[in-house]
Amino acid sequence: MKRENQATALNSVHGAIEDFMRTGGQGFNPSAMGVGLVGHVDATAGIWRHWVNLPIRTPIPLAAQLETRYHLPVALDNDAQAATLAEMYLGVGRETEDFIYINVGTGISAGIVCNGQLVRGASNYAGELGHMMVDPEGPLCPCGRHGCLETIASGGGLAAVARAGLADYPDSLLQDVARTGRLSARDVFRAAAAGDPLADAVVERAVQQLERALVNLLNLLNPEVVVFGGGVVSDGWLVERLQNCVAQAPPPVQDGLRDFALSALPVDQVGLLGAAMLAWTMHSERKTPHG
Amino acid sequence: MKRENQATALNSVHGAIEDFMRTGGQGFNPSAMGVGLVGHVDATAGIWRHWVNLPIRTPIPLAAQLETRYHLPVALDNDAQAATLAEMYLGVGRETEDFIYINVGTGISAGIVCNGQLVRGASNYAGELGHMMVDPEGPLCPCGRHGCLETIASGGGLAAVARAGLADYPDSLLQDVARTGRLSARDVFRAAAAGDPLADAVVERAVQQLERALVNLLNLLNPEVVVFGGGVVSDGWLVERLQNCVAQAPPPVQDGLRDFALSALPVDQVGLLGAAMLAWTMHSERKTPHG
Repeated sequence: MKRENQATALNSVHGAIEDFMRTGGQGFNPSAMGVGLVGHVDATAGIWRHWVNLPIRTPIPLAAQLETRYHLPVALDNDAQAATLAEMYLGVGRETEDFIYINVGTGISAGIVCNGQLVRGASNYAGELGHMMVDPEGPLCPCGRHGCLETIASGGGLAAVARAGLADYPDSLLQDVARTGRLSARDVFRAAAAGDPLADAVVERAVQQLERALVNLLNLLNPEVVVFGGGVVSDGWLVERLQNCVAQAPPPVQDGLRDFALSALPVDQVGLLGAAMLAWTMHSERKTPHG
Repeated sequence: MKRENQATALNSVHGAIEDFMRTGGQGFNPSAMGVGLVGHVDATAGIWRHWVNLPIRTPIPLAAQLETRYHLPVALDNDAQAATLAEMYLGVGRETEDFIYINVGTGISAGIVCNGQLVRGASNYAGELGHMMVDPEGPLCPCGRHGCLETIASGGGLAAVARAGLADYPDSLLQDVARTGRLSARDVFRAAAAGDPLADAVVERAVQQLERALVNLLNLLNPEVVVFGGGVVSDGWLVERLQNCVAQAPPPVQDGLRDFALSALPVDQVGLLGAAMLAWTMHSERKTPHG
């Protein structure tokens, strides 16, 4: 989704919360609010900050704004960190202290749990797997580097790589979809399954780059479990392909890797579960409301 | 150092320990022993395991062997994990809970500390930064992939890339050194400083790939401090070059990165300090001797 500027981005967040409180919030009396946001969030201060692709120029003290409006303590966080908390408390985290939750959706992010704790890093920015450079000759990323994983293997990346290839494949099944202006990763997968050469090349490239990034990640963090979420992988076949690739990597890479699977949490609810976990864990991490 | 087989590798370790106990151990009465080893170590079981480049085919219960021989409790670990413990207790770890210790020596490894804890992963194999693929067109690595960071930017990698370039640079200052059969990273740096085009190209390539790996790492773990150790960076200029590269990366990459520097621990003692920390922390991690 493209937001034109800071005001519309902020309005759409406020609108979504208002809607949720009116409809989803009926019949219960909330004691705290958790909000998962795209981009860079200062979870401690409750501030939504700028990040590439996001039209935020001035940091927004969103937690304080929401506390004033709803008279509830509010926890903000990056949506990927929030989803990882959901995985930690409700999913694979109940079985292991060392796992990585990889979300492949519009972008690509990793939630990293080591020694039973979420890795936030110095400024809650850890987990930007989408900006791992996997192909130095790859597409230019908004971050300024070339060939970040996200430019090739995310939902947005798959669609963009397919669009860039249309000129070389005039007979591609994707030509018709592209003319509607709504070519998506799902279209690319569907065309690849139908044997379309352009779509097939785009998908194979994405699989290859995901495999590179995954082996890098396994070498670096040696997780016990890797769990996948997000719309792009929700069918399961992509995770299976990656599992086969990783199984062929040199033995130490797989050492200790007990499970490599699609998340058991429902893909359309993990965002809400994550937001709920933010509210739920707020008291252990931060005692006072903002503002 | 090349070890011909498992027996000679093991003998050289036993010999080094015997020497140390005879000379360095004079005048004090040790109550525990810590040993940092190259390759993959099961620290919990006290077992030295196989890894690429290492002539170990059968896992060695080295902790039990040493406990029998010296009548002391023995802690084994990978040398990079041990050095990171030294950094954690005696170095930058006293100032931050989120840091990465990068050792650039014969190989390249990362010691990762998140939330104040060493990241070991599921089988104590975390930190293999040397096997991050940075150049898919790069040299073949013993691990089976191409263009692992280590093949280009470690001490061994720098020397190998320089040797591979000799045929194209008949007038290189490195030709004479190469004929002695002892071309090292230090020779490459010296020749680059003297303006030798081959050496310069080799060094620039290493800097470029180290920068790629570092930005990947910062995006993934968002450390507060990055600290460097190992013979290849001990002069300090390489760390300064990398610091300048990283300073030009997009802002979020540097967010929260407070320090980026050469380790203050002496390069020739960090291995021993690490081994000492292994012995020192043994009681908190494992109560009973092996065997």
